[in-house]
Amino acid sequence: MEFNKNPKGIEARSMEIITEEVGNLGQSPQEDKVIKRVIHATADLEFAKLVVISKGAVEAGLSALKAGINIVTDVNMLKAGITKGKRRELNIKVNCFISNEEIATEAKKLGITRSMMSMRRAAQDKDNKIFAIGNAPTALFELIRLVKEGKAAPELIIGTPVGFVGAKESKEELEKLDIPYITVRGRKGGSPVAASIVNALLYMC
Amino acid sequence: MEFNKNPKGIEARSMEIITEEVGNLGQSPQEDKVIKRVIHATADLEFAKLVVISKGAVEAGLSALKAGINIVTDVNMLKAGITKGKRRELNIKVNCFISNEEIATEAKKLGITRSMMSMRRAAQDKDNKIFAIGNAPTALFELIRLVKEGKAAPELIIGTPVGFVGAKESKEELEKLDIPYITVRGRKGGSPVAASIVNALLYMC
Repeated sequence: MEFNKNPKGIEARSMEIITEEVGNLGQSPQEDKVIKRVIHATADLEFAKLVVISKGAVEAGLSALKAGINIVTDVNMLKAGITKGKRRELNIKVNCFISNEEIATEAKKLGITRSMMSMRRAAQDKDNKIFAIGNAPTALFELIRLVKEGKAAPELIIGTPVGFVGAKESKEELEKLDIPYITVRGRKGGSPVAASIVNALLYMC
Repeated sequence: MEFNKNPKGIEARSMEIITEEVGNLGQSPQEDKVIKRVIHATADLEFAKLVVISKGAVEAGLSALKAGINIVTDVNMLKAGITKGKRRELNIKVNCFISNEEIATEAKKLGITRSMMSMRRAAQDKDNKIFAIGNAPTALFELIRLVKEGKAAPELIIGTPVGFVGAKESKEELEKLDIPYITVRGRKGGSPVAASIVNALLYMC
């Protein structure tokens, strides 16, 4: 079995194939990089039409990352997907509260999801400036509520929850928000989608 | 914003919607559950046609899990996606060697990927009985080589690498192997796909 064993070579060739198949995407070379990294992570060309980047969102993300802020994720899978080398270099911390025991206890008491409770927890720390939500619509709904009530003020929301119940609707609410965002229309999304958007921004720093 | 805040309710409704849209899948109710959990994780109905389960693979996976073996994953993102409650209950350990420093050093020395090196490392421990590969085609190619050379004898391979270079080909090689496997045809796949297959098996135990 002959196959390409060079990680850098595999990635470069993947990006070439994606460009051959979908051309240039987005409103700028930076947006093109973000959308192509989503396609690279999913091998799903449909994302060329689904990713939505609000005006100035890439710039907002880059300036936040360069300032060394914290990223919040809704699930540990997304946290694990964020590339370590570059974020350590930039001194970026990634916080995920979903597995904290007090989050579970509190959520149960209030009759809400752990995802929602972990957004409330994350909003308490003002250094949490980029919120990346790859899995739970309830986390995104809750974050939107916190923003509307002035209880959270992220510099960028990466909101790509996936699924059949609430995912599409939560992302439609995100698009109404007056905060820089990157999202995906419809049911599709997921942790690799959110991770690849974060990573695309990290690689550009 | 009104939305469903009950995790069990969200999951049950998701499965209902999937069944409404794709009917029953696979060769048995157990296979149906595996394939639907992949669709649930990705919101991508195309997986109804892409998931391939070799004869007896679900049974092989269930009996391995019930015996309390180890699962190996190629990446930490996949490890993070495997549900904790059920695997702790069954005393299942999940091993991922990709971030070990000696793996990186050794891979560099040999001019192979860290993914390949971590498969060689995993094959040394005979308790590693289920191999789940969600990301790297090179990991799957290497595992197939180890099996052919008698250096690895997994009871089940869950092989769903994703991407434009080698992913499809690695999964075609997997389908030629005389070992129980669950895979996905074509370029698509990923950590959530592999995680959802592992989780479907865990939930059935």
